[in-house]
Amino acid sequence: MKILIDAFGGDNSPQDVIAGTVAAVKAKKGFTAVLVGNKELLDVHLSRYGYPQDRIEILDAKQVITCEEEPTVGIRTKPDSTVCKAFKELKDNEEAKAFVSAGSTGAVLVGATLKLGRIKGVARPALCPVIPTLNGKNVLLIDSGANADCKAINLCQFAVMGTVYANAMGVESPKVALLSNSTEDEKGNALCHEVFPMLQSMKGINFIGNMEARDILSGEADVVVADGFSGNVALKSMEGAVKTVMYAVKDAVYGSLSGKIGGLFLKKRLKKLKEKFDYNKRGGALFIGVNKPVIKAHGSAKKETFKNTVLQAVSYAEFDLADKITAALIESGVASAK
Amino acid sequence: MKILIDAFGGDNSPQDVIAGTVAAVKAKKGFTAVLVGNKELLDVHLSRYGYPQDRIEILDAKQVITCEEEPTVGIRTKPDSTVCKAFKELKDNEEAKAFVSAGSTGAVLVGATLKLGRIKGVARPALCPVIPTLNGKNVLLIDSGANADCKAINLCQFAVMGTVYANAMGVESPKVALLSNSTEDEKGNALCHEVFPMLQSMKGINFIGNMEARDILSGEADVVVADGFSGNVALKSMEGAVKTVMYAVKDAVYGSLSGKIGGLFLKKRLKKLKEKFDYNKRGGALFIGVNKPVIKAHGSAKKETFKNTVLQAVSYAEFDLADKITAALIESGVASAK
Repeated sequence: MKILIDAFGGDNSPQDVIAGTVAAVKAKKGFTAVLVGNKELLDVHLSRYGYPQDRIEILDAKQVITCEEEPTVGIRTKPDSTVCKAFKELKDNEEAKAFVSAGSTGAVLVGATLKLGRIKGVARPALCPVIPTLNGKNVLLIDSGANADCKAINLCQFAVMGTVYANAMGVESPKVALLSNSTEDEKGNALCHEVFPMLQSMKGINFIGNMEARDILSGEADVVVADGFSGNVALKSMEGAVKTVMYAVKDAVYGSLSGKIGGLFLKKRLKKLKEKFDYNKRGGALFIGVNKPVIKAHGSAKKETFKNTVLQAVSYAEFDLADKITAALIESGVASAK
Repeated sequence: MKILIDAFGGDNSPQDVIAGTVAAVKAKKGFTAVLVGNKELLDVHLSRYGYPQDRIEILDAKQVITCEEEPTVGIRTKPDSTVCKAFKELKDNEEAKAFVSAGSTGAVLVGATLKLGRIKGVARPALCPVIPTLNGKNVLLIDSGANADCKAINLCQFAVMGTVYANAMGVESPKVALLSNSTEDEKGNALCHEVFPMLQSMKGINFIGNMEARDILSGEADVVVADGFSGNVALKSMEGAVKTVMYAVKDAVYGSLSGKIGGLFLKKRLKKLKEKFDYNKRGGALFIGVNKPVIKAHGSAKKETFKNTVLQAVSYAEFDLADKITAALIESGVASAK
């Protein structure tokens, strides 16, 4: 099994991508990592590391689509970009099972949809991060940003894809909630009003009703369904709030002598806590609904995150989501015709 | 000046409403607090407190609209409810300047719009909480939940109302941002695409562009404009995340011996921190766009919050927002005809 990795995506590429990839092949057997990018440069970087030589390959790609470029233009005009080369390989090579990138989100999503193609029955693939909660459960927030404007049928499909994804992660009959501005059934915006009864009647969906954004982290639902705009607002609001509070806690701990003394005792625990809430460190968001797993890591990802994301890709490659998603869409009665 | 207070709104009414009101009149001169609710009951409660007798009055109202009731039905069928009586008094009595309630949000918003009336030129009043940030600045998030579905013109009016509100709070030329899923100009959903150029060209609006939800707490913008659904998602996501992290910090501090020792040194600072982020304790959200200030406190508000919200109402009564909002809407070219 080969896992493709965009060596020139993200703020800390290629150094941290390479370091993370080396760490990943050392941590787990059974896959080959393929770094996609400028071969000459990658050879120089790789020569500095010790690792099992047969575990890391290079797929040469001389171009990079930057975050400043219009994604569709980049995909069209840069066939030798890391993203385009990776998707071509994913499509053509049976052995290539998944792709990891911390580069331009737009380019990855557009490239995946156009080059790799959507799973049969899926109208709109969606971004789906795994959000850790205090009680140890994971919450899938789908869509967290791929589709700013959605129709009711899209959200119903997100519910199906989220359910299949949660199943693959070991959750039986995952609880699905609809993100709304109230927990009451009849509340929400026009889209919620349309989606709510559809989710209620869909076969194979364990729908538990509307959920307010403040309860996402409660872990009451396994899958939270939202349009990509609100889902993005929820995800980034939580991210910003967690960051702000942790910063303030740090300031409280180290901002005074008594705080410093207290901090000595707490240092380890606070560090652990910070890591607990940093979902970005644990891996990337799955772009679910395209023919092979594509995982988008945060643009600021570092070595540890790349390592985790590569390992995540390895386990996702074994999920075999495509067939399951098509079957589940048909069962639920929301498969798209083309 | 009279400030009307819904004595039977919120989980902790009437006890905490009364205690908070007594504390408010003791803390500040120059206003009379009018508790709206069952006179017999309120007389019994009030007899337990010592306070300047001429500072607290009672407006008898025998009914209560509960959170379980359909707001429009409640407003129509319960003329003797605290909310209906308060809005009638606000409308008829020149001296009555503002209304505070922790009761049914729906009933308060519907009642205010129907009974008190919209400010001339305002199509949709909006909920606007004051969110504290680390750098000491306050951010106004408008709309945070009154209008689940919005048109472009509504968001433009929110920008104007937020600007006037920030002005009243002493911020000159407040920075206005549009909540979006990216900071780039051309990103967002269909509504953002429509609103963005309108905000750019509006006179009197200091528009700084799109803002991601993760930056709301940065304090870079004084006013963040959103439709009521996304605004609600942002507000509640932040609320949930702050609560979860603070809970986890507490757990880290008191969950082990070394933590406990550390916690002793940190206790005061962490408590202060918790209060810093608890915007609900500081007061309520202004329902802006109706003829007199209506302030919605959190349903779980306690004594301290009621005290703060009553004092907030006193200062807002002096803002004279109505005329300023009408003038600003006309200046910006977004006043509604009726």
